[in-house]
Amino acid sequence: MSRSGIGSIVCPAGLESHRRFVVSLVSSGTRTVSNETYIGVQRFYAELVRALDNDQFEEAAAMFTENGELSHTPGRPAARTRQGIVDDLIEHSRARRNSGEQRKHWFGHVRLSRVNDTVLAASAYVFVIGTKPGELPRLVVSGILHDVIVEQGDGFLLKSRTVVKDGAQ
Amino acid sequence: MSRSGIGSIVCPAGLESHRRFVVSLVSSGTRTVSNETYIGVQRFYAELVRALDNDQFEEAAAMFTENGELSHTPGRPAARTRQGIVDDLIEHSRARRNSGEQRKHWFGHVRLSRVNDTVLAASAYVFVIGTKPGELPRLVVSGILHDVIVEQGDGFLLKSRTVVKDGAQ
Amino acid sequence: MSRSGIGSIVCPAGLESHRRFVVSLVSSGTRTVSNETYIGVQRFYAELVRALDNDQFEEAAAMFTENGELSHTPGRPAARTRQGIVDDLIEHSRARRNSGEQRKHWFGHVRLSRVNDTVLAASAYVFVIGTKPGELPRLVVSGILHDVIVEQGDGFLLKSRTVVKDGAQ
Repeated sequence: MSRSGIGSIVCPAGLESHRRFVVSLVSSGTRTVSNETYIGVQRFYAELVRALDNDQFEEAAAMFTENGELSHTPGRPAARTRQGIVDDLIEHSRARRNSGEQRKHWFGHVRLSRVNDTVLAASAYVFVIGTKPGELPRLVVSGILHDVIVEQGDGFLLKSRTVVKDGAQ
Repeated sequence: MSRSGIGSIVCPAGLESHRRFVVSLVSSGTRTVSNETYIGVQRFYAELVRALDNDQFEEAAAMFTENGELSHTPGRPAARTRQGIVDDLIEHSRARRNSGEQRKHWFGHVRLSRVNDTVLAASAYVFVIGTKPGELPRLVVSGILHDVIVEQGDGFLLKSRTVVKDGAQ
Repeated sequence: MSRSGIGSIVCPAGLESHRRFVVSLVSSGTRTVSNETYIGVQRFYAELVRALDNDQFEEAAAMFTENGELSHTPGRPAARTRQGIVDDLIEHSRARRNSGEQRKHWFGHVRLSRVNDTVLAASAYVFVIGTKPGELPRLVVSGILHDVIVEQGDGFLLKSRTVVKDGAQ
């Protein structure tokens, strides 16, 4: 099995195994992460959702590392690099933008563990509200996401994000 | 264009321009706000939602400054002063209260920037769940709110709140 | 009226009076709880929802005290002791698990007050998202919960939880 590095650690290649690997990192984390960092990640996510929901895809991609990876839909290959993520977000949102539907991402119940001095593994619950003009809001996604986060000075960058949606068949 | 003061700054008159002004304050904020204050605002909002959802409108209005402003529906003039806010909340909630529907406000993904030593600009995602007797809960509002918050001793007061709802036509 | 102890305090017997008692504790709390503890409870809840939503009922029950109590449905007697809570969660979730529906619990807008040196009274807003295979997510519960939480070393244990659901008839 081929392996690729995340920070100073190695993990199995492949999306599903990557996801399980991140999950196990989160579950087995023994080094606790400070409340300061915990709030920092909450605030980082508050910035990220605004970029995503305002169709500011360049800004969203800039919150990933240069070689960051985004996998938000099972069966769809992960987007890689900032430009790849921008392209993917534009394509993925086309139908929704054409319909005039507004979306709001909510990330919560964050769980953090430390991978090494500058890398965190995070999981968070997620749901997305979609509102079409003149209609009531409705839930369009529920699930959990698994992030690898790099601490960068006072801030954070996403090394990778994998979204696992409820109800996927 | 007439101007009115918010704290030590001036802003354009009119609701829409006020909203844009608050938005730009939030976006351009360069002075960071501490995590302590960030949690303080989370806890302030936890109190506010209980007052709103328990129909404790006097208590909700008391969380605004004496001359506070509340604009929650486009095309409806902003309510001004605590008594004006109480009157507005009573009138706005009448149909819902008569139907027996219970509501829960959720505010999250708070973003804070400092306007001056005692004034914060905040934005937060918002959704409202409505539950009628014997029915499943449903989303009745999704949007974003823009607050100007005054720090008052250990606590906070709302100087103004503007709610921008998704799907408004 | 018979009385039973919660930590070093006494409270009226009976579920409804217990709930009202906890509510009044929360409302009348004058001793403030630190932001560190506030975040700690957020993180404790982040662990609890994962146990509940992954059908890890032993793990969920282990987050209660040995003689902990859980009351999540009006008219249904409270489950008592860890084993009683496991049994209750298994029975309560049977229909849902058989349908393949996935659930996500969200707890938020936490409000904390201190009962004594090691006991906290908490309330939190709650909603539950249910997603059946191939369907859109939907809200299946909205309400508020009232917890009595025991501080245990660096962590927390639930002494009791009472869930009050919106729309109950």
